[in-house]
Amino acid sequence: MPIVTPLTERLGLDVPVLLAPMAGVAGGALAAAVSSAGGLGFIGGGYADRDWLASQIEAAGNTAIGVGFITWALARDPDLLALTLARRPRALFLSFGAVEAFAERIKAAGVALIVQVQTVADARRAAAAGADVIVAQGTEAGGHGSSRATLPLVPAVVDAVGGIPVAAAGGIGDGRGLAAALALGAGGAVCGTAFFAASEALSHPNAKRAAVEASGDDTIRGSVFDLARGLDWPEPWTMRTLANGFSRQWHGDLPGLQANLAAEQTRYEQARQDGNTDIAAVIIGEGADMVRAVEPAEAIVRRITAEAEQALARGADLVRVGHRSGQA
Amino acid sequence: MPIVTPLTERLGLDVPVLLAPMAGVAGGALAAAVSSAGGLGFIGGGYADRDWLASQIEAAGNTAIGVGFITWALARDPDLLALTLARRPRALFLSFGAVEAFAERIKAAGVALIVQVQTVADARRAAAAGADVIVAQGTEAGGHGSSRATLPLVPAVVDAVGGIPVAAAGGIGDGRGLAAALALGAGGAVCGTAFFAASEALSHPNAKRAAVEASGDDTIRGSVFDLARGLDWPEPWTMRTLANGFSRQWHGDLPGLQANLAAEQTRYEQARQDGNTDIAAVIIGEGADMVRAVEPAEAIVRRITAEAEQALARGADLVRVGHRSGQA
Repeated sequence: MPIVTPLTERLGLDVPVLLAPMAGVAGGALAAAVSSAGGLGFIGGGYADRDWLASQIEAAGNTAIGVGFITWALARDPDLLALTLARRPRALFLSFGAVEAFAERIKAAGVALIVQVQTVADARRAAAAGADVIVAQGTEAGGHGSSRATLPLVPAVVDAVGGIPVAAAGGIGDGRGLAAALALGAGGAVCGTAFFAASEALSHPNAKRAAVEASGDDTIRGSVFDLARGLDWPEPWTMRTLANGFSRQWHGDLPGLQANLAAEQTRYEQARQDGNTDIAAVIIGEGADMVRAVEPAEAIVRRITAEAEQALARGADLVRVGHRSGQA
Repeated sequence: MPIVTPLTERLGLDVPVLLAPMAGVAGGALAAAVSSAGGLGFIGGGYADRDWLASQIEAAGNTAIGVGFITWALARDPDLLALTLARRPRALFLSFGAVEAFAERIKAAGVALIVQVQTVADARRAAAAGADVIVAQGTEAGGHGSSRATLPLVPAVVDAVGGIPVAAAGGIGDGRGLAAALALGAGGAVCGTAFFAASEALSHPNAKRAAVEASGDDTIRGSVFDLARGLDWPEPWTMRTLANGFSRQWHGDLPGLQANLAAEQTRYEQARQDGNTDIAAVIIGEGADMVRAVEPAEAIVRRITAEAEQALARGADLVRVGHRSGQA
C-alpha cells in the first residue's frame, strides 16, 4: 500500500523514501532504482565534477530522479546548476550552505527545491528562502552534518516552518525509523546508510562489506577524513564515518595530522583506491545496525515501506486495543 | 485512553511515560505527580546524599515511585541501596556504570531493575546482568550521556536484547516523540527536559524560565560544568546543558579552566545559589523546543499522552486512507 503524506503529494511519490545524495556513492543507477521503487533517488553531485555528473544523469535514463549538491561547492562552480536544470530533474537537494543565490533559478525552472538543514534557525532561513521541502538532518547521519539529533530536531522544525513539508534525515535505517519520522510530523525520510550497501551503490565492495558488519556503536563524527582528502569544509560541518585505524590515529590529534599532511594524504588516496577500509573512510551513520546485506535498492525500499506500515499499524493498536493484563 | 505496551505491563502503568531521575531536579513531589498521572516518577538519587534522599522519599508519600542512581556514585556508598530498598520503591533506575554488583540485591528485593545504556554493546551487557527494563539513551538527552543518538539506537537495542522491554530516552519532549519511540519498538519513553520546568521540579525558577525560552539549538554537550562542580565523571560520559557565558568561555579551553579551577568553582557555586543562568548550568536537552510553559507535571503527562495517541492514529491513517490527489 502507498504511504501518503504532504511530502509524497508534493513530489509525486508512492512512498516517502528519499535517497540521500551521497557523494561518490549515489550515482544514476542507484537513484533510478530508488525512484523506480516508488521513492525518489538523488545523484550525489558532491564536489561538482561535471563530467561525472553528466554521465550519471545519463545513467539514470528516463527515470525521474533528483540531484543533490553541497551548496558551498556548487557556489564555486555555479554553471553546474544550469547544466543540471537543463536535464530537468524532479528536484534539487541543497545541503551545507546558503541557498539564497540559487533558489530563484531552481524554482523558476519548475524544479522542486529541497533544502537540508541541521538547526531550527537554519530551517527558518530555508523556509524564508522558498524551500519546497525542508530536510531536518540529525547528527547520527553518515557523512557531513552537525550536532543536533534527528528525534528532537524534526518536530521542532515542523513547528517552525509553517506547513512546508519536512523530511527527516539521520539514523533512519529501516521501516521503524520511517514510521518514527512520520510520528514526529515529518512527511518522509531521507535514507543514506540504508542504501550504502545497495547493489547499485558506487561504494567499494570492501566498504559495503564493512557497512554490513558494522554497528552504529562503531561510528564517529570528526574532520580527520576531510583533512586527509584535502577538502576544506567550513564550520560547523563535520563528517560521520566508521571509526578505523586512520581515525583512531588522528581523531584526537588534528595538529599532528596537519604536520604530516602530504604523506598522509598520499597514503589515504592509495588506500581509497585499494579499498583498504582501515585507512579509507567508510562513510556511514548510526543506522548501520540495520544494514544486514548487500541487496538491490528496490528490495530495500520495499522492505522499509512494509516495515513502516507494520510499525504504524502496531503503534495505533497500542492505543486502540487495551490488552492490559491487570496484574500490574 | 491508556497506551498499553510490554513496558507498561511490566511496571504496572497506565501510560508509558517515565520521569528521568534528574539529580537536584526530580524530588519526591515531582516523582509522585508523574506517578499519580499514570506514569512512573523517579527521584534523582544523584550523588548519593542520604539525608536528602530520605526526605524526598518521604515527600512522595504513599505514591508508588522509583529511585534513580548514578551507578558509579552509588558504588562509593553502597549502603544507600539498602536504605532505598527498605522504602520499597517500584523500581530502581541505574545509569552510568557497571550494575553487576547491585543487580542481585535489587531483584531479590522484588524491585524492578531498570538499566540505562548509551550503546548497543552496553545494552547486551545490561541484559546479561538481568535488567528488567533497558533504557536506550541518546546524546540529545539533557544531563549526562554519551554520543549515540536516540532514533537509531533504540531499534538496534530492541533487536539486541531479546524481548526485554526497552524505553527510549533523549529528545522526547512531547507526544510526537513518545509516538516515535513506540514506532521504533520501545515500550515507552523516559522524559527529563519535558519535566524540568514542571511546577513541582526543584529547578531554580530562573532555570525554568531559561528552559521555557530555549531552543534545542542552544544546547551543548561537554565537561565544563562537571569541572566547575568538582565532579569527577569518568569517560565516556559528558553533560548536555544550555550553552551560556560560562560554557562559551571554557568549552574550548578545558586546560584554562583547570588552571583557574579554585576561583572558577567559587564563582560557579555562588552563581548556582543566585540562580544566575549565564554561569550556572541549566541542565536540559534538545527537547527544549517542546517546553513552552511552567505547568504541573500531571498536565504534562496528560498532554504527552494525548499527543501521542493523536500521532499514532494519524500515522496509521497515512497507510489506511489513501488521500492521494493524483496530481503528482
